[in-house]
Amino acid sequence: MRTDTPLAHPRLPGYTAPMKDGIETRLYVDAPLAAGGVVALGQDQAHYLKNVLRLGPGEGVALFNGRDGEWRAEIASVAKKSADLAVIEQTRPQRAEPDVWLAFAPIKRARIDFTAQKATELGASVLWPVMTRHTMVDRVNTERLRANAVEAAEQSDRLTVPDVREPAKLEALIEAWPADRALILADETGGPPIAEALSMHRERPMTRAGFLIGPEGGFAEPELDRLRKLPFVTRVSLGERLLRADTAALAVLAIWQALVGDWTARHD
Amino acid sequence: MRTDTPLAHPRLPGYTAPMKDGIETRLYVDAPLAAGGVVALGQDQAHYLKNVLRLGPGEGVALFNGRDGEWRAEIASVAKKSADLAVIEQTRPQRAEPDVWLAFAPIKRARIDFTAQKATELGASVLWPVMTRHTMVDRVNTERLRANAVEAAEQSDRLTVPDVREPAKLEALIEAWPADRALILADETGGPPIAEALSMHRERPMTRAGFLIGPEGGFAEPELDRLRKLPFVTRVSLGERLLRADTAALAVLAIWQALVGDWTARHD
Repeated sequence: MRTDTPLAHPRLPGYTAPMKDGIETRLYVDAPLAAGGVVALGQDQAHYLKNVLRLGPGEGVALFNGRDGEWRAEIASVAKKSADLAVIEQTRPQRAEPDVWLAFAPIKRARIDFTAQKATELGASVLWPVMTRHTMVDRVNTERLRANAVEAAEQSDRLTVPDVREPAKLEALIEAWPADRALILADETGGPPIAEALSMHRERPMTRAGFLIGPEGGFAEPELDRLRKLPFVTRVSLGERLLRADTAALAVLAIWQALVGDWTARHD
Repeated sequence: MRTDTPLAHPRLPGYTAPMKDGIETRLYVDAPLAAGGVVALGQDQAHYLKNVLRLGPGEGVALFNGRDGEWRAEIASVAKKSADLAVIEQTRPQRAEPDVWLAFAPIKRARIDFTAQKATELGASVLWPVMTRHTMVDRVNTERLRANAVEAAEQSDRLTVPDVREPAKLEALIEAWPADRALILADETGGPPIAEALSMHRERPMTRAGFLIGPEGGFAEPELDRLRKLPFVTRVSLGERLLRADTAALAVLAIWQALVGDWTARHD
């Protein structure tokens, strides 16, 4: 469900590619989706349909919930604080999506919004803020992060929304990290080139992976020591230019998609 | 030289890694750099040193001009509208940097600033706005783009600033494109996976390349036809999720650096 969290850009312009059947509006909903069903929208989504998009009864909307694929729906009724959508037919079945996590030290507001949006477009399945010693931000608005992720998922044609986790301290993240998931550490002190590390596969296939991006001030030396000793951690280098944390986050996700994820498939 | 163009963020925070000799301030200047020389700063840079960084005589600054490497300098004098820097010694020689261009249909203000900053961090050597049929922005402030590129170059430890070109219509860009430089078209209608296309090398080595990113509305069909027929154009696909133009620009540069550029070198 769209949250009440205000977004910096209430509706991002730009995703203008028309969708199947000419439907240009996609909404992420919580409700189950099945033919003949009715989905009741809350105040925010109703407002968005009625006052922002100026849609009325009979007009089409695409719905997805992360579980039941994408459905064509029609507006049955729309009022100031609610709207009902009639679910008509499935337009895309649910399918497996790339399984790549992004754990990142939170940064200031505009750039954390941006990170959530871009990581969603780039197909991240989990967004996980991690508090490290040099992290300068001590509070993360996860509802706001989620709202950004929902919006980017709607607009990028995804069938899922990334799982936005509550912030964890680095040690807690390490404790909770699944042993069979490669943790790829963007290590500003050096390491093997990222393309080499992602191609080697070692013991852990890189198809089940997560990246860890430190804060602008870098990881503290004891943090790096701790991380480097973990069996599921692979260090990678992103060259010698200094990258901002948000740039590094997007770079690793794009490279992962190109080498391991679904950008490896031909698409015509 | 720093321009008078105001930046959205007068000084970006975050690049906190201390530089050689503990110098944390880097400035791009036009002047030649050689031992014993004096570099006179204009009003903007003098203001920045004095009032933003609160540096005074005797304090160190790193200088680069894109030709003479990086130099350690000391503030000799600083006044309200000018400052003199004494050039002491070279800290890094000039060296060849990756040769990758980014031609992109301009987008709205905050995101075009962002594109210039991130592309600079990711090592682009040329930034070239291109006007296409569906481009929604009809004026590009190249001075502002240049100011963003200078700032990102200073902060990302580059020894050069990307060459920010004046906007060109797509046809003029095609006419001016060097025949020995691969033009890699991010084609939303499909194409070979980017990693495959960059690895194949074909007739043109991908080490001398430029990416072309269309506007949010995509290229018009006649534009795509024209591009696809050119011998130096390689189409690539970035998967099936819809990417915003700025996301696509950063993704291709990161992938190029990882597979072809200087992120392929080991760095410790």
